Amino acid sequence: MKKISALFIALFLLSGGQAFAAGDAAVATLSQSMDTIWVMIAAFLVFFMHAGFAMVETGFTRSKNALNILMKNLLTMSIGAVLYFIIGYGIMFGTSSGGFIGTNGFFLLGQSENIGFFVFQAVFAATCATIISGAVAERMKLISYIAVTIAMVAIVYPVVGHWIWGGGWLSELGFTDFAGSTVVHLTGAIGAVVAVSFLGGRIGKYSNGKVNVIQGHNIPLGALGVFILWFGWFGFNAGSTLSASDALIPIIVATTLLSASGGVIGSALYSYIRYKQIDASLTLNGALAGLVGITAGTASVSPIGAIFIGLIAGVILIEAVQLIDRRVKLDDPVGAIAVHGVCGVWGTVAVGLFAVEGGLFYGGGAALLLVQAIGVLAVIAWTSVTLGTFLFIYTRFSSIRVSREEEIQGLDFAEHGSTAYELRGGILNNNESPSTGSPFGHGLVDRLNGLEKPKVDRKAEVGG
Amino acid sequence: MKKISALFIALFLLSGGQAFAAGDAAVATLSQSMDTIWVMIAAFLVFFMHAGFAMVETGFTRSKNALNILMKNLLTMSIGAVLYFIIGYGIMFGTSSGGFIGTNGFFLLGQSENIGFFVFQAVFAATCATIISGAVAERMKLISYIAVTIAMVAIVYPVVGHWIWGGGWLSELGFTDFAGSTVVHLTGAIGAVVAVSFLGGRIGKYSNGKVNVIQGHNIPLGALGVFILWFGWFGFNAGSTLSASDALIPIIVATTLLSASGGVIGSALYSYIRYKQIDASLTLNGALAGLVGITAGTASVSPIGAIFIGLIAGVILIEAVQLIDRRVKLDDPVGAIAVHGVCGVWGTVAVGLFAVEGGLFYGGGAALLLVQAIGVLAVIAWTSVTLGTFLFIYTRFSSIRVSREEEIQGLDFAEHGSTAYELRGGILNNNESPSTGSPFGHGLVDRLNGLEKPKVDRKAEVGG
Amino acid sequence: MKKISALFIALFLLSGGQAFAAGDAAVATLSQSMDTIWVMIAAFLVFFMHAGFAMVETGFTRSKNALNILMKNLLTMSIGAVLYFIIGYGIMFGTSSGGFIGTNGFFLLGQSENIGFFVFQAVFAATCATIISGAVAERMKLISYIAVTIAMVAIVYPVVGHWIWGGGWLSELGFTDFAGSTVVHLTGAIGAVVAVSFLGGRIGKYSNGKVNVIQGHNIPLGALGVFILWFGWFGFNAGSTLSASDALIPIIVATTLLSASGGVIGSALYSYIRYKQIDASLTLNGALAGLVGITAGTASVSPIGAIFIGLIAGVILIEAVQLIDRRVKLDDPVGAIAVHGVCGVWGTVAVGLFAVEGGLFYGGGAALLLVQAIGVLAVIAWTSVTLGTFLFIYTRFSSIRVSREEEIQGLDFAEHGSTAYELRGGILNNNESPSTGSPFGHGLVDRLNGLEKPKVDRKAEVGG
Repeated sequence: MKKISALFIALFLLSGGQAFAAGDAAVATLSQSMDTIWVMIAAFLVFFMHAGFAMVETGFTRSKNALNILMKNLLTMSIGAVLYFIIGYGIMFGTSSGGFIGTNGFFLLGQSENIGFFVFQAVFAATCATIISGAVAERMKLISYIAVTIAMVAIVYPVVGHWIWGGGWLSELGFTDFAGSTVVHLTGAIGAVVAVSFLGGRIGKYSNGKVNVIQGHNIPLGALGVFILWFGWFGFNAGSTLSASDALIPIIVATTLLSASGGVIGSALYSYIRYKQIDASLTLNGALAGLVGITAGTASVSPIGAIFIGLIAGVILIEAVQLIDRRVKLDDPVGAIAVHGVCGVWGTVAVGLFAVEGGLFYGGGAALLLVQAIGVLAVIAWTSVTLGTFLFIYTRFSSIRVSREEEIQGLDFAEHGSTAYELRGGILNNNESPSTGSPFGHGLVDRLNGLEKPKVDRKAEVGG
Repeated sequence: MKKISALFIALFLLSGGQAFAAGDAAVATLSQSMDTIWVMIAAFLVFFMHAGFAMVETGFTRSKNALNILMKNLLTMSIGAVLYFIIGYGIMFGTSSGGFIGTNGFFLLGQSENIGFFVFQAVFAATCATIISGAVAERMKLISYIAVTIAMVAIVYPVVGHWIWGGGWLSELGFTDFAGSTVVHLTGAIGAVVAVSFLGGRIGKYSNGKVNVIQGHNIPLGALGVFILWFGWFGFNAGSTLSASDALIPIIVATTLLSASGGVIGSALYSYIRYKQIDASLTLNGALAGLVGITAGTASVSPIGAIFIGLIAGVILIEAVQLIDRRVKLDDPVGAIAVHGVCGVWGTVAVGLFAVEGGLFYGGGAALLLVQAIGVLAVIAWTSVTLGTFLFIYTRFSSIRVSREEEIQGLDFAEHGSTAYELRGGILNNNESPSTGSPFGHGLVDRLNGLEKPKVDRKAEVGG
Repeated sequence: MKKISALFIALFLLSGGQAFAAGDAAVATLSQSMDTIWVMIAAFLVFFMHAGFAMVETGFTRSKNALNILMKNLLTMSIGAVLYFIIGYGIMFGTSSGGFIGTNGFFLLGQSENIGFFVFQAVFAATCATIISGAVAERMKLISYIAVTIAMVAIVYPVVGHWIWGGGWLSELGFTDFAGSTVVHLTGAIGAVVAVSFLGGRIGKYSNGKVNVIQGHNIPLGALGVFILWFGWFGFNAGSTLSASDALIPIIVATTLLSASGGVIGSALYSYIRYKQIDASLTLNGALAGLVGITAGTASVSPIGAIFIGLIAGVILIEAVQLIDRRVKLDDPVGAIAVHGVCGVWGTVAVGLFAVEGGLFYGGGAALLLVQAIGVLAVIAWTSVTLGTFLFIYTRFSSIRVSREEEIQGLDFAEHGSTAYELRGGILNNNESPSTGSPFGHGLVDRLNGLEKPKVDRKAEVGG
């Protein structure tokens, strides 16, 4: 877009003609419209990634917590969009105060020409926040999760965004994060680390010094989620051009495709080497690892570079999952910290290595690499300190975790009074007045009807 | 598009030059092509909404009726597209006879330049019809449902469409329904009210004066459907500009995003107030309530207005579900009448309140509000009378409902001779000649092989 | 695009003016950008078809093989993209050696301006290969399947593609296959025939002269896959214009919509005639039959022609499934050979019958029909000989089939050490050191922990 606009201005000055200017104006208008539909279509795709997150997180956790994880994802998108409109956008893209924080544009005041850009950024903000929902699944109170979402979308993420995409100090430094390996994924993952640290692992996960495995209940649904995320990621990366006329679009799409493919291949091969079998869940996560890995450098690396970034991301993922689960003992049911955090760091650093212009492997020296490392450290520090402080204060007043009994029953019953699946095909007998339960069998209907409570899963307490 | 074309004509006349005209023509051609791909991409998204409807309706009903609901959705899309090509499009957009009905353009004769527009409208027509499938789920005969679909797509919907979008009398009156809160959603929902009235509730739903709850079998699948519908709705609303150069596109996308978000938040909060828990099914439906609510006014309200329209839609939804289920006693398994009907009315009326130009809250007086109310009443009257007459006659000749035994067995077995799930992983022994059953185990194969019939679910008759 | 560019050149020569040329250049650049985003969006949709294939194949097979089929689909897309980058693209679109094979452009060397085109073609190549995964499901070793994928993406498919889309001998002959009924679908299906011939049927499928039915485990997931495929197919067909300015785009979208609809209606009606019930699985496959059927002629037939092509495809599908399953006795769990192979032939031949220009039914004589037949035969010969030779050699060194015990246990356990569903909600007790199993409960964790092996399904051996 910018290039074409510049061309027009140059031509206008050269031609000095009025008739000519009229034709120019029409082309410029058309070019702007094309940018708009491109960014809108990309925003639709990024929105759809939330379906992908919801399916991945639902599939990779237990059926007794499925409604809860779905609600967390749906509410993150919804609260995220509204809050980003009210405050987040202004902090991220408002007039900068010292390169640290934006100071106007709240409620999009004075931003009517940027409303399309706002939409694209709003679905990004919700993406960052929703990364946490997977890591805290199966034991965090919905209300506490919402508090974290509010903190992330209103403050933590927009400040990072301001530093890097809003003209702040990191962008001044030359930090390169094209579509958000750091801005979106690392920020979300650090938020997840902090939340999980305050929360602790699920009952039965770490007991008597043993590390147990808690299997997901529906991997095909999770696999669909991975395909949806990959599909949406094309919009995430290529839409970040913000212009349909950007000559980099095909490069971005190709590097996105090839890095995700490399991630799958890397995880499949490495899981075969490590576990003697191709691990399905890790290979599915390998696609996401490749995608997170390419997000920062998607516009600045070559197709071959993208394949290597993905392959390495696929290997890093497995070691990171292993390390976090078995050594660090952060209980992350879906592997979000490894995928978005560790591979987010990898992707950001990889720009310093693989960028065709400025990358270490292309003769660019270590300058860019250093800037990338500074950015990563700054974001880790900011996110962990701010969300850590927030949760430190919050937990003085309220527990962020459901009770032991509720966790064992499942959050679907405890927090939503219902179940995600009803395979008996039964009919509940509702003797109560119309106001006591929702007509869908949710709310308190089961409990009020005195149905027996779900049996406590004693197996879940193995060694607990 | 229109604006740019007008600009060109004006410029052409002013410039009086030939060389200039040539450049203009190229820009105009390009602009038309851009409009085409925009409307086509939007049509793809609206098509995909049918996957969303199929998943919502399957997930929110019982597993024994899953194949049947899938077939109803798939056939609605297919029969809808063909019938709209043959007759619906002509009635909706043909030369008007008295502002009431279109009279030509059948089989797209003479409409070759409008074929892209036809596609976009065809997937809309099928959307209107498929709304009924959810409300009549679990007891309506497939063949009778198809008859209703034919009536809706061939006559009922196109006439409404002609009144409002085809230059008919309501459009002359100034009725505003940008993307179809009334045209598509209210029309479909009134069709559902009529069909359910003729059909009655499911066995066990209303018995001995009690209102029972019949739970859906797979809420995660239903939640995926909600995400898909939301995703597709961006095409539904923003594609209704019919032009990629329309400056309203970003506004439309933003109001769609914010109203849906408001619907989720509204339903979550209000279900918490009403039932003391965040009801998952109602909150999922809250997203759809917000989407139906914004559809009429998506291009004419502000972002803040959109949030309020959504929040209110989310609250209205819950009261409407409660009222229809418990007081009016229309058995609507998926809440389609509340979502598409009540929120469709709300969305249409909300234009009269929130429209930045002409809305009551923006100093526009009650004139627009009055026109909106007239349109709503006219569509309710037309749809209920025509479909009511159709079903009154139809039911003289044939029952529209499966037998009691078939309903208890499940429509999958009764109408398709099979089941949606086969979790035993078994192999059916087919001793029959190759012509007696389909190789997929469907058709009559089970029955012919003398396998025991599915057990009648006695629980389903609780209190019946 | 080409038309507009030509227009510009003509206008430029006529105008002879410099100022004019500048405006032209801007319009041409804009037009190119528009083509790029169109093809990229279409590529996203074609990519998403892989989610559709994965869901169809998972849903239509047994739950004990779900992880395996998901891995096959995910790896096909990933290996396909990388291999097509390395070798396939060069063979398909490199400088032709005698109209038979391309000879340069490997690693996209010298193809930087075609990188967007590469992406679009890469997702096509993976589509061709993944067709095989459904047909060989539930008994083929993953490693052998990968070998077949490599052969298909690196050699078999690109050579066919070169003949027809790369300027090779069949395109010289006038063979018409707009979006790939033959290039993609027939080639994949013949690959499937060859692989299944070497592989044999599943245990229990053909026993004691009887043909047994092995039901899929999750038809709703399969139905979602069909909707996703249909959605993606709009990109498959309309993106094959490679230009956003192509006036054929609306025609293509309309014929795609109407033929798929015809396929559904044809299969529903014909299954009702043949089996006295509307068979759900066949009707779902009917949509795909209509889509495969229209793919070759999507740009050259009329809307009415498209409806007939679809209707006939829906009927052909059922007879083909019946014939392949019961007479030819090729065990194809998902009906891929009937859908992609038989309907692929039908679609290719249908161009010779229904093409508005040159088709037999439109007075065009039999010339085109003959060329179409030659193309079909050539592709069948090439694919069966090359892949047949490959598998003949391969099977001298290694079995391509899992052991009887592994097949009965399910490939999920045998090849991935895990299960797709975990409905007990249980926790596995992992007493081993951190390096013995993946934290997701996959890899060898179950086996190492000495959990009892999945019970052998004796029913699966019925009559075996």
